[in-house]
Amino acid sequence: MSDEPRNLLVDRTPLPDGIEERLRAQLTFLVEVDRLKTVLRQSPLAAADRRENDAEHSWHLAMMVALLAEHSDEPIDVGRTVELVLVHDLVEIYAGDTPLYDSAGGAGQLEREAVAADDLFGLLPDDQARRMRALWDEFEERATPEARFAKAMDRLQPLLLNWMARGGTWRTPGVTADDVRARKAVIGDASASLWTAGRHLIDEGERRGWSRSAPDQD
Amino acid sequence: MSDEPRNLLVDRTPLPDGIEERLRAQLTFLVEVDRLKTVLRQSPLAAADRRENDAEHSWHLAMMVALLAEHSDEPIDVGRTVELVLVHDLVEIYAGDTPLYDSAGGAGQLEREAVAADDLFGLLPDDQARRMRALWDEFEERATPEARFAKAMDRLQPLLLNWMARGGTWRTPGVTADDVRARKAVIGDASASLWTAGRHLIDEGERRGWSRSAPDQD
Repeated sequence: MSDEPRNLLVDRTPLPDGIEERLRAQLTFLVEVDRLKTVLRQSPLAAADRRENDAEHSWHLAMMVALLAEHSDEPIDVGRTVELVLVHDLVEIYAGDTPLYDSAGGAGQLEREAVAADDLFGLLPDDQARRMRALWDEFEERATPEARFAKAMDRLQPLLLNWMARGGTWRTPGVTADDVRARKAVIGDASASLWTAGRHLIDEGERRGWSRSAPDQD
Repeated sequence: MSDEPRNLLVDRTPLPDGIEERLRAQLTFLVEVDRLKTVLRQSPLAAADRRENDAEHSWHLAMMVALLAEHSDEPIDVGRTVELVLVHDLVEIYAGDTPLYDSAGGAGQLEREAVAADDLFGLLPDDQARRMRALWDEFEERATPEARFAKAMDRLQPLLLNWMARGGTWRTPGVTADDVRARKAVIGDASASLWTAGRHLIDEGERRGWSRSAPDQD
């Protein structure tokens, strides 16, 4: 837990009396996670000229799980995989988004996110707090086929958006096509066919000059 | 189907060769549904001073299903209920959002949405097109416990956002607290306890003057 209690959204307009304790805790959490809609990612939308937020991204991953599950190399429980992607970015409400190609921001990320998870999931009744935490841990540890597939979606979706933007975050200074390949290779831990398609996008993007073949020279 | 083919997002940056037909159709659909992030609803966010979009809304409903399913008066398959809410607004990509308190906009809505469903789901491989259409039909028909619960979430979520905004769309000209009660009563078809909580929010909102007790006098 963090030392100071967080300011909760619901405290701005407290729920009325007469809602029983367990439901009140659930509604408090459900109002608080509205903040996910304000956490901006680096990825540009395909449909508009702005960056994506975490809630939109999480919805998009859930659609991808529902439609691409057949490409998993191992059998997966689709329902739990959907839950993993719905929950996977919630801690960023308090910990912020760490861009994929930002290794400096990555330092301390784990600690920040663990505190965030305690604070956020702690708003829920204990049994549901434990379940949310277990889903988040499962996603992070990537030890189950469901978590590996969820992670693959988390890497494939921005790859699609970057393709649509003819570069997008591939154009981040200092990033090369080989950096992109290295960051995206976890797709292959879940699905050979999706990683083949992902590599096509990366290779063709490099060929067209949407990513760098070699680091910039100073 | 509409007479003219739709302009697809993916046509702006066509996918490279070498991606097999079925996966190409799936990715085409998954790029196209990026548009859901640009369909604005009437509801104000709790976490920021702007209106919500359909993708954020759909993600929020999925979280609500996962955490509030225990309040369903009938047993529900949580995984399918989550799929229902993830899919329920997709047709608005081509048909637009029809505000809850707009009875004029409601005319022709069904026809527009049916054409939109044909066009959008028709991008998918046939088996998946049928499955998406079946989920959308199930949600609209409200004949299953899962669809009734999904619909209840679709009505409860903006109620929470309006509460947080101290009125929100309850302040729409001509709308009274009784109109709100009438539109929200379907929550009670799925969950007595959630409808009790919902009525608390509506009643207390009316008491505080966040909604009208009687129509405005001309």
